[in-house]
Amino acid sequence: MSMREIALSDLDDIARGAAVLGTGGGGDPHIGRLLASASLREHGPVSLTPLDEVPPDAAVLPVAMMGAPTVMVEKLPSIEQIGLAARTLADYLGRELTHIACAEAGGVNSLIPVAAAAQLGLPLIDGDGMGRAFPEIQMVLPTLYGVRATPMAIADEKGNRGVLDTVDNHWAERLARSATIDMGCSAMISSFAMTGEQARDSLVPGTLTLCAELGRLVRTAQAEHRDPVDAVVERLGGRRLFTGKVVDVSRRTVSGFARGDARLVGMDGDSGSELVLRFQNEHLVAERDGTVLASVPDLICALDRESGEAITTEAMRFGQRVAIIAAPADPRWHSPEGLELAGPRYFGYDIDPVGVRQ
Amino acid sequence: MSMREIALSDLDDIARGAAVLGTGGGGDPHIGRLLASASLREHGPVSLTPLDEVPPDAAVLPVAMMGAPTVMVEKLPSIEQIGLAARTLADYLGRELTHIACAEAGGVNSLIPVAAAAQLGLPLIDGDGMGRAFPEIQMVLPTLYGVRATPMAIADEKGNRGVLDTVDNHWAERLARSATIDMGCSAMISSFAMTGEQARDSLVPGTLTLCAELGRLVRTAQAEHRDPVDAVVERLGGRRLFTGKVVDVSRRTVSGFARGDARLVGMDGDSGSELVLRFQNEHLVAERDGTVLASVPDLICALDRESGEAITTEAMRFGQRVAIIAAPADPRWHSPEGLELAGPRYFGYDIDPVGVRQ
Repeated sequence: MSMREIALSDLDDIARGAAVLGTGGGGDPHIGRLLASASLREHGPVSLTPLDEVPPDAAVLPVAMMGAPTVMVEKLPSIEQIGLAARTLADYLGRELTHIACAEAGGVNSLIPVAAAAQLGLPLIDGDGMGRAFPEIQMVLPTLYGVRATPMAIADEKGNRGVLDTVDNHWAERLARSATIDMGCSAMISSFAMTGEQARDSLVPGTLTLCAELGRLVRTAQAEHRDPVDAVVERLGGRRLFTGKVVDVSRRTVSGFARGDARLVGMDGDSGSELVLRFQNEHLVAERDGTVLASVPDLICALDRESGEAITTEAMRFGQRVAIIAAPADPRWHSPEGLELAGPRYFGYDIDPVGVRQ
Repeated sequence: MSMREIALSDLDDIARGAAVLGTGGGGDPHIGRLLASASLREHGPVSLTPLDEVPPDAAVLPVAMMGAPTVMVEKLPSIEQIGLAARTLADYLGRELTHIACAEAGGVNSLIPVAAAAQLGLPLIDGDGMGRAFPEIQMVLPTLYGVRATPMAIADEKGNRGVLDTVDNHWAERLARSATIDMGCSAMISSFAMTGEQARDSLVPGTLTLCAELGRLVRTAQAEHRDPVDAVVERLGGRRLFTGKVVDVSRRTVSGFARGDARLVGMDGDSGSELVLRFQNEHLVAERDGTVLASVPDLICALDRESGEAITTEAMRFGQRVAIIAAPADPRWHSPEGLELAGPRYFGYDIDPVGVRQ
């Protein structure tokens, strides 16, 4: 069942579920919830449009936060900034917007669009551009359908804004990344303006409903003393890769990204083994005792072993007891074009993708 | 006497004179001449409007090349790129342009606007924003009059373009500099859109006429076997600081600028002495045996000792015999606000400005 509206009372579940799909990135769910709840309190609930009900001639603008999650937890976006990028782009396009969309799923990036839709008084599409989170702008399914990242708008909390119009989506990433770094390593963007028809073809349907459902599953499993990790794994059709304790996290903010790796020693059935997670904002590769267990484009998520709450890469700390799970990505990510855009080789790992459904 | 038109036959003199006012920066006059002559050949002469004849309600757009001159000599701007920045900005502003202007004087930056005016079929204003060249965007007299650098447009030779709209002119410099670096360390910009009234208040009048006159003086002095350096010094009301041989040039492309210094050993009346020139695209400080002889905001120019041709910082080489001259800047640069914008302390030299008219 699709949700038809997002109200204040839905935000906790959505944030919790979105953080799972964020695969370590996509922003801190607590910040996403704060921003969305401020906007919903002021403007009321946001109407949610199922992807297959979006009119083909709709004017759709995805919005997102871009930057290093390590910075976003310290430099909060401003409420004003959230609508500014979308408004700037709509002005530049000279077009009347009809729908807001999510570029990716994640603790912040599933909820920023809720805040933007509330501020702009527009419906939000129940879907997103990835079905997960990825670190770079061009890494969205619409790229595979020829939707251009630009013209895109970028705005910071000081009021600086810009519009980029580039020859391809990789140039959009490059120029926007530098602007984001100048703006303090986090900025609001609006990108991949598209028609309703393009949205229906290229977005992943039902993401916000799925986030709410995942959040609810975790919450009820906690309340009923069942294992919330199992509930998530089952719902996503994924599998549990490892259970262990975080013993080391190396993390640096490089070129506007949070890059690094986390080392875990096994517990429960995994004692005696070691798992390494490699990330660039999002988890990219999980390696157990030197063997890759899972890799992009499939989802690799770190969940608290007890509560099932997703742990973002920037929140990962020594001593945490976590369950590492993997879940299948939208099948389009496994196409040759999808892998070229966001497969392990793009990120510098000389391996074939290791998926959940091998 | 003001010129009323720029024809193909004027370009040599303008380029030669503009390179003098470029104080080492502002781009290679040979490249400026190439670009302008291609445009004039296609579109015919450009009409030149004296500053005091610009209608108060004119819509004026300055255009310039931004970046490291060391790169510009290798990565030539494309002809298409020249009009693109101005057209992008005019579209963004939703305004019909009436005049093109020069942001600064220099071998490229006095001639790019000639090419842009020819391409766009618009008159060019006989004036510029500095009366010389400076390395950063906000360093124009219009900044002192409250004219905003943004909205500004930036374009590269690949077809990438962007519009920036920032909270102040320093932010414009910062974001545009990063974009310029990504674009390969040189880009075309259009910035400081202004009314005719603002142009009349804030620009330096007669710069293109002065460039042509300086170029003519050098050329005729060469032909008549008089000293072209003396002719330039006299016309600018400046003085000769030093004559010597270049013995060392240290130059690096840093943060999108060509920074460095040149060391000269004295010749003629200066033998036994040493002069150091410190530059960031443009010459900033001239120091003789540890004593500062001249500094920004006044003009410091390196001229070939024999031919009087200006030598840009990126063309300075071991063994060249050069005359170093200084000339007074527009008096507004010596105001407290002018010095704050482009005095020696802004560039990191803890000295009071040393001017020609001390």
